[in-house]
Amino acid sequence: MSSPFDQQKAIPGVKKIIVVSSGKGGVGKSTVSTNLALALSKKSKVGLLDADIYGPSIPRMMGAINQKPQVNADQKIVPLTRLGLKLMSIGFLVEEGAAIVWRGPMLFKAMDQFFRDIDWGELDYLVIDLPPGTGDVHLSIAQKIPVSGAIIVTTPQNIALADAKKAVDMWKRVNVPVLGVVENMSYMLAPGTHEKIQLFPKGELSSYLDSQKLVRLAEIPFNPSVSLGSEAGIPVVESHASGVEAQAFFGLAERVLALG
Amino acid sequence: MSSPFDQQKAIPGVKKIIVVSSGKGGVGKSTVSTNLALALSKKSKVGLLDADIYGPSIPRMMGAINQKPQVNADQKIVPLTRLGLKLMSIGFLVEEGAAIVWRGPMLFKAMDQFFRDIDWGELDYLVIDLPPGTGDVHLSIAQKIPVSGAIIVTTPQNIALADAKKAVDMWKRVNVPVLGVVENMSYMLAPGTHEKIQLFPKGELSSYLDSQKLVRLAEIPFNPSVSLGSEAGIPVVESHASGVEAQAFFGLAERVLALG
Repeated sequence: MSSPFDQQKAIPGVKKIIVVSSGKGGVGKSTVSTNLALALSKKSKVGLLDADIYGPSIPRMMGAINQKPQVNADQKIVPLTRLGLKLMSIGFLVEEGAAIVWRGPMLFKAMDQFFRDIDWGELDYLVIDLPPGTGDVHLSIAQKIPVSGAIIVTTPQNIALADAKKAVDMWKRVNVPVLGVVENMSYMLAPGTHEKIQLFPKGELSSYLDSQKLVRLAEIPFNPSVSLGSEAGIPVVESHASGVEAQAFFGLAERVLALG
Repeated sequence: MSSPFDQQKAIPGVKKIIVVSSGKGGVGKSTVSTNLALALSKKSKVGLLDADIYGPSIPRMMGAINQKPQVNADQKIVPLTRLGLKLMSIGFLVEEGAAIVWRGPMLFKAMDQFFRDIDWGELDYLVIDLPPGTGDVHLSIAQKIPVSGAIIVTTPQNIALADAKKAVDMWKRVNVPVLGVVENMSYMLAPGTHEKIQLFPKGELSSYLDSQKLVRLAEIPFNPSVSLGSEAGIPVVESHASGVEAQAFFGLAERVLALG
């Protein structure tokens, strides 16, 4: 009997594939994907693939809403280029307002097209923003392409951690190395007073990471400017590059680069 | 050809079924479900069903983690009772740390059991916390049980609104009345200064609601105490009943009760 992982095929021209996932939605996974990809692109050739079929946020975050990618002579989709990054999103294929209820077969077809029919050219890194949770998209990624590593995004509280653990567990089961965990919305500095506000109570992330021999790749503070940057289509790594949030993303990129 | 909606069957003893959904995860859907159900239960008989298969948070939020419901002589599952509420969660059937990759057939089986094999007794309201997004669980709910109405939870920014629109669109397509939208994490009052902090930038929710003739059922401020209550297993409606956040949830319950 052949293993489903025998179907794995490299994406031509792409050296490393990093997936960004989260157990739970709304933890800032797309914000992390986008800012990580932009920070990496200052030192390497990077593509960003938005595979969050349920809520493709990256077109808006990258100021590329309602764009339609072109198809080249080889019938391959040509990614857009924004802020030095090559960019493709499932959001370019569907209308923003439309409800898509993806059922298994449609989903696999769309994913297959995504992995095979995009002309990325030469990339050092392809960063893939996955849907939250643990589902069919994750399994089909692990089966179809050789993923170099997974980054898990979570917020500090135990309710989010419970779901992050499931994501870690899933990647381990399909033999994708977990590069580490990004703690997003770690804390917030109150405007004016700069008092540290714990928006979400600190849970047991540190002891969990120790027990699993996993690293915390970054702690990203909450700042309304991050969300504003996402809304405006200019991520915080571009718009406030010297701020503490952007610096946390650059630090994350350095750690990813250091992994080789 | 018979319509899939011919499969709809009432849940015995249950008068009204309210589903709480969101386009995007992390907007506080389970927090809204839990506090709405608790607020409703002060004036009526209420059950809370956690059908968020990807991240069942309600056991933790209701202080009922690692509980195992009993099966009665009729082979029906008996919901737990907590804080005057009848409670059942997919989380009671699986280990918190385990990754479950639900595929279609498993999912439908679990959902069917959830709708048919629980002995709710007499309920005025069954509040169902759905997974975020628009997927198979939503369709199977709409097909299998007569839903009285859907409440959509969102946060203020346009990235969240884009996904909330998809949820509205989906419920309309399957003829489930949309009762309205709850705007969660509307703003935050800074501790000490009580300055209003716009955590997420205000998007175009108001004009969207007007255009769709939909109502904003509640605006819930962000307060770390809400998240703390969820972590501690005592929702804010119980722990800080007189606070502005709890009062917003009581207001939401009043509006739902007023719908009859």
